[in-house]
Amino acid sequence: MRAATIREGEILIEEHPDPVAGSEEVVVQVHAAALNGADMMQRRGLYPAPAGSPQDIPGMEFAGEVIALGAGALRFGVGDRVMGIVGGGAQAELVVAHERVLMAVPEGLDWQAAGGLPEVFTTAHDALFTQAELRPGERLLVHGGAGGVGTAAIQLARAAGASVTASVRNEALREQVGALGASVIAPEGFAEHGPFDVILELVGAPNMAENLQALDTGGRIAVIGVGGGAKSEINLLALMGKRARIHGSTLRARPLEEKALVARRVEREVLPLFEAGELRVPVAETFPLDQAAAAYARFAAGGKLGKIVIVL
Amino acid sequence: MRAATIREGEILIEEHPDPVAGSEEVVVQVHAAALNGADMMQRRGLYPAPAGSPQDIPGMEFAGEVIALGAGALRFGVGDRVMGIVGGGAQAELVVAHERVLMAVPEGLDWQAAGGLPEVFTTAHDALFTQAELRPGERLLVHGGAGGVGTAAIQLARAAGASVTASVRNEALREQVGALGASVIAPEGFAEHGPFDVILELVGAPNMAENLQALDTGGRIAVIGVGGGAKSEINLLALMGKRARIHGSTLRARPLEEKALVARRVEREVLPLFEAGELRVPVAETFPLDQAAAAYARFAAGGKLGKIVIVL
Repeated sequence: MRAATIREGEILIEEHPDPVAGSEEVVVQVHAAALNGADMMQRRGLYPAPAGSPQDIPGMEFAGEVIALGAGALRFGVGDRVMGIVGGGAQAELVVAHERVLMAVPEGLDWQAAGGLPEVFTTAHDALFTQAELRPGERLLVHGGAGGVGTAAIQLARAAGASVTASVRNEALREQVGALGASVIAPEGFAEHGPFDVILELVGAPNMAENLQALDTGGRIAVIGVGGGAKSEINLLALMGKRARIHGSTLRARPLEEKALVARRVEREVLPLFEAGELRVPVAETFPLDQAAAAYARFAAGGKLGKIVIVL
Repeated sequence: MRAATIREGEILIEEHPDPVAGSEEVVVQVHAAALNGADMMQRRGLYPAPAGSPQDIPGMEFAGEVIALGAGALRFGVGDRVMGIVGGGAQAELVVAHERVLMAVPEGLDWQAAGGLPEVFTTAHDALFTQAELRPGERLLVHGGAGGVGTAAIQLARAAGASVTASVRNEALREQVGALGASVIAPEGFAEHGPFDVILELVGAPNMAENLQALDTGGRIAVIGVGGGAKSEINLLALMGKRARIHGSTLRARPLEEKALVARRVEREVLPLFEAGELRVPVAETFPLDQAAAAYARFAAGGKLGKIVIVL
């Protein structure tokens, strides 16, 4: 099979052996595989794939068609439309995944949307509801509202009855982010738009001091991205005074059972909202596999709304 | 009534008007009222009592006898032995408290133990179980294991089936802390004794970087004291990689309904262990009200195991 391949910081298309399904695994013919910040870091050698995942083929989410079943695989049949998260290897013609981490693609969702759904909607749902325990009527601030996770978080929080403020650096994208249901603000001086019950932090250290200021009593900060820096001075007395908490999280390093658990939550709590037409996957641009390098360049350039997707 | 009184950083004994019970409140004749770190800060002008509490009479926990009932007070009768937490005013002959924040003193518990129970056992229980969600079989590290909250936390965690390591600076106290059920270590290089699932932080900023190192995946840090400093550099990438969380909390500023809720949890989950003889309140030293200033000096000097209690 052909696959995007990391070679000394470059993305090439190379031939690899076809993957084989082990017990309870399935082989999926990939129709769409989206890019994520983690792919950018992995390309630069900063974020190796977890053990057991292809080390040189990037790609952590995909949608496609089941073409072969391993021993004991029972959840899907050949021809089923599935999507899911893997530790790596999704930006390829074929990918193997454990059947427990896969989800059925909702009726009516096209391949490019399905290929850009699992990582960001799972990440946003896990951070907002499982970690930060966002509740109806609460006030959420999303930092980096125009990105993949940001646009997913805005929609999920609105569907759950929260009020959402989103900071967006790029002025040209603010109207589109607003159309997802958020009050859109510039990142500068965001605390004056508070207080907030939950803050979804996708930028990292530079925001943390102001995040604590902007938090209401009992507030929660979920840190799931540190592109702007990782080392942050935190005033613990302020944290105590607000009776607040700070969560850190990543999906990629989780073991099978935890990835399967979050997939079940997304099936139960998120996919019905896609079926009802209440959520959508904003896709900024698609690229064929041959142009994977251009897709990476587009992702790295920023200033996009939603996902960059490789389509096959 | 006579009461310990803060005057320009000094503790004096002065006459105050007798307090009167409002609706659903009771007047308690205080038999014992223990000291806490917050009293030390308040004496220095750093931690004013919350609105509605006496501003110049310190004391946040007490045990005593109900001597009068306000309108609608139903939970206790005159002569009942009660204990509880207030925003201030407990180091006095009389104190008024809402009946919902009071708890009955367990059979067989003497006044000095009962007067030193509410603040530390409530704080430790709330931090360990409600916030950090400590579970049986998990590994807990308590920083400052010889103090009031530390000795309460060790006993509560052991009773819940956790394994406990406690850091204790004062060598002379290590054996006694060990007798409460903890493996006792020096604070220096504590991370080598990890990993830990939960860390109870009573010292503050100086420990935080090593706390993150010492934490296992999915770990939780509960910060409830910052005597060693409040401003701490936190590596958010490490927090993400460990999928960890940091809680900050205080009891004092909580509204009535939250204080009542934690009192119900302590009644249900802690007091039966006192009745069964599984928990005890280590009392380092007692002082009569007349010598409250000496009690403060003793508390500030440190190097004690357990509580300093004013007895009346």
